[in-house]
Amino acid sequence: MQKQAIGRQVLDRTITSVQAVETCIERIEKHDGEIGSFVSLRAEQALAEAKAMDASPSRGPLHGVPFAAKDVFDTQDLATEYNSPYYRGHRPARDAAAIALLRQAGAILLGKLSTVEFAGVGQVPDTRNPHRPSRTPGGSSAGSGAAVGAGLVPLATATQTGGSTIRPAAFCGVAGFKPTWGRISCEGVKPFAPSLDTVGFIAEDIGLLQSAAAACGLEHDFPSGFGRPMRLGMYPTPYFSEAHPETRAALEHAAAVLRQAGHSVESVDGPSGQQELNGWQDTIMLGEGVHALQAEYRGHPDLAHPGVRALAENHRKIDARKVSAALDEVAALRPRFERAMQGFDAWLCPAVPGEAPRFEEGNGLATFNRLFTALHLPCVTVPGHFSERGLPVGIQLIAPRGADMRLLGVAQVLEGLFSPA
Amino acid sequence: MQKQAIGRQVLDRTITSVQAVETCIERIEKHDGEIGSFVSLRAEQALAEAKAMDASPSRGPLHGVPFAAKDVFDTQDLATEYNSPYYRGHRPARDAAAIALLRQAGAILLGKLSTVEFAGVGQVPDTRNPHRPSRTPGGSSAGSGAAVGAGLVPLATATQTGGSTIRPAAFCGVAGFKPTWGRISCEGVKPFAPSLDTVGFIAEDIGLLQSAAAACGLEHDFPSGFGRPMRLGMYPTPYFSEAHPETRAALEHAAAVLRQAGHSVESVDGPSGQQELNGWQDTIMLGEGVHALQAEYRGHPDLAHPGVRALAENHRKIDARKVSAALDEVAALRPRFERAMQGFDAWLCPAVPGEAPRFEEGNGLATFNRLFTALHLPCVTVPGHFSERGLPVGIQLIAPRGADMRLLGVAQVLEGLFSPA
Repeated sequence: MQKQAIGRQVLDRTITSVQAVETCIERIEKHDGEIGSFVSLRAEQALAEAKAMDASPSRGPLHGVPFAAKDVFDTQDLATEYNSPYYRGHRPARDAAAIALLRQAGAILLGKLSTVEFAGVGQVPDTRNPHRPSRTPGGSSAGSGAAVGAGLVPLATATQTGGSTIRPAAFCGVAGFKPTWGRISCEGVKPFAPSLDTVGFIAEDIGLLQSAAAACGLEHDFPSGFGRPMRLGMYPTPYFSEAHPETRAALEHAAAVLRQAGHSVESVDGPSGQQELNGWQDTIMLGEGVHALQAEYRGHPDLAHPGVRALAENHRKIDARKVSAALDEVAALRPRFERAMQGFDAWLCPAVPGEAPRFEEGNGLATFNRLFTALHLPCVTVPGHFSERGLPVGIQLIAPRGADMRLLGVAQVLEGLFSPA
Repeated sequence: MQKQAIGRQVLDRTITSVQAVETCIERIEKHDGEIGSFVSLRAEQALAEAKAMDASPSRGPLHGVPFAAKDVFDTQDLATEYNSPYYRGHRPARDAAAIALLRQAGAILLGKLSTVEFAGVGQVPDTRNPHRPSRTPGGSSAGSGAAVGAGLVPLATATQTGGSTIRPAAFCGVAGFKPTWGRISCEGVKPFAPSLDTVGFIAEDIGLLQSAAAACGLEHDFPSGFGRPMRLGMYPTPYFSEAHPETRAALEHAAAVLRQAGHSVESVDGPSGQQELNGWQDTIMLGEGVHALQAEYRGHPDLAHPGVRALAENHRKIDARKVSAALDEVAALRPRFERAMQGFDAWLCPAVPGEAPRFEEGNGLATFNRLFTALHLPCVTVPGHFSERGLPVGIQLIAPRGADMRLLGVAQVLEGLFSPA
């Protein structure tokens, strides 16, 4: 199902932007009936914009590259519905900040992508894993993972509050990036839990993630450090017992190719207290989430999915003191994690427990994502591995807050080792 | 300039909602030419809505009460311009979450209020202190403080990233409330620094702040604790040397009336490290703020005020590691502050250094606000004191995160002691 890198070809001027957009539209028409990733399309306008890009000097690091947006990002050209009955036909007046930045950098908005309702609770879209339609693509950025995984579009926006960017990318066999919390504006993105919500990207390769990061103003403000040889930590996380054989095999293979290329991979461990991180993330997510949908729920309780109702009514009875305590515990671990990471270019760890579950079983678990979202660390998933059944599993790289561009550099080295030219 | 409490009269059904709206409009027409607090007005629609409210059973805790919104809150009925050339005529498709919640609770939107550009940088509105037009009303919620201070409207929304709610309320002689960070959704409010931005309110009295808090879903999830007698701490903050005589006198008077009424007021101090808090708040505000306006600035650098340019170009050269370090230092102090506050109903401290400065000298300092914004603590300013020149100075009460309703209860006791019936 994986196709040749369209974004790279546009940026290298191997193909025109018009050709890229036409290819995407053809593939969407051919394959998306089965996959169900796009919720809207602006084919004609995108083609007109591509034509203008082909005739103009470069506007930025994504000049002429088609992309699509998870339908929790405001777009002034297309409805923004969050997969929710509360927002049928909603047309924001402005693009979300991240959408505006991508378009200013020359990217062309092709359409909107399916999402779990409000990026976390409520109805699940009927979007299928492009590697096997009986499987979930992961969520909540279901359409972003599936569309890029199917080669329908080279770049998609995503968000992560628990595991909503890394998980679908890893399940769909593509590259995914959750930046450091707070480094890309969340303006115009439906909020869920403000101390966790992070704008991310899913792309056909790491290079395109670098271009998207540059378009959003992420700069090399960390010493790039790596070079040859790199020093990596192998971090099992406190939850390694939940990793399936395919994830374990992927990590072993990654370590082997890295060592073979002359890099070091050492076993590392996080600070004490780390085993509680996923629990604290859950408390923060649901505790802050109580406030996210009050206006919708109080205005029209009749429209609420049971998941929305449970969140807004705080069925878990998470009070303000529990949220504060969880925030404080996580905050205390952040500097301790980063001290442990000193001297390493990045740490390698699982991205997902294993291959994508069957569609009926849900989105899969965010076991290897929640802790890092809470810690505000940048995370990248690199594709290249498959389970015995032929389904993709990504591996994950993490780095200290702010080291986003360095992390993407490490990921690109690893991507090259997985698929030598 | 202070008028009889309109909001209270509406809620008590002493006057109708139509009478309240008519009174507000008359006062705006008569006084706002000199004050300059409103940037837009929807008089006819507000009157029609008031008529409907008068004819209907109560819709919630603000039934029939007119309010106005700082022009950084999205409103579907009125332009939302952030006092910025980037957003002339901007019409969002939906109300900000807080606006929607107030309206669902029966409040009637009367108009929009002036703000410093983007609630923090850029151009300052020509809004004057209603107690003396040669003085600033404070900022960035300049119009919110001035309009409520002049009795033009009983309730206004505000925001605080540094001191933008408490400071204008204290300068304009009215009640102001900055809730615990994260307890009221910031959706639809222009973001500046996401780990600091907080939705707040300015009102003619504490009771109306309680109604606004209830409308936004704040609940009594802390033991209400106080009662008779209350136990208060007198907290000078690390910056007390910057408090002017009028602020010192206001605090002494507050302590005296509290003790006279049988409550205890004890000297207290915060944990070690507290003296750096305002510096860390500054690093976080400007470091996170770098990302807030990238879409605007990169899209149209020609429209940028020098303040917007300095922020977006990071003239202070605050890198990601400095921001992380400041966030970690502040986070480590949060539980230590709250342990020090245990057993107290609230702590009493300065709200502003002293009376409002001359208009030409700027908005005044946020010396006694920045630290509490960074700590995420709920803050209330209670009016009732004046400088020798007859200008208002508020005092401030603070409490642990989540104790918002308890804090407002303490503030109401103090308000009653300042102005016995």
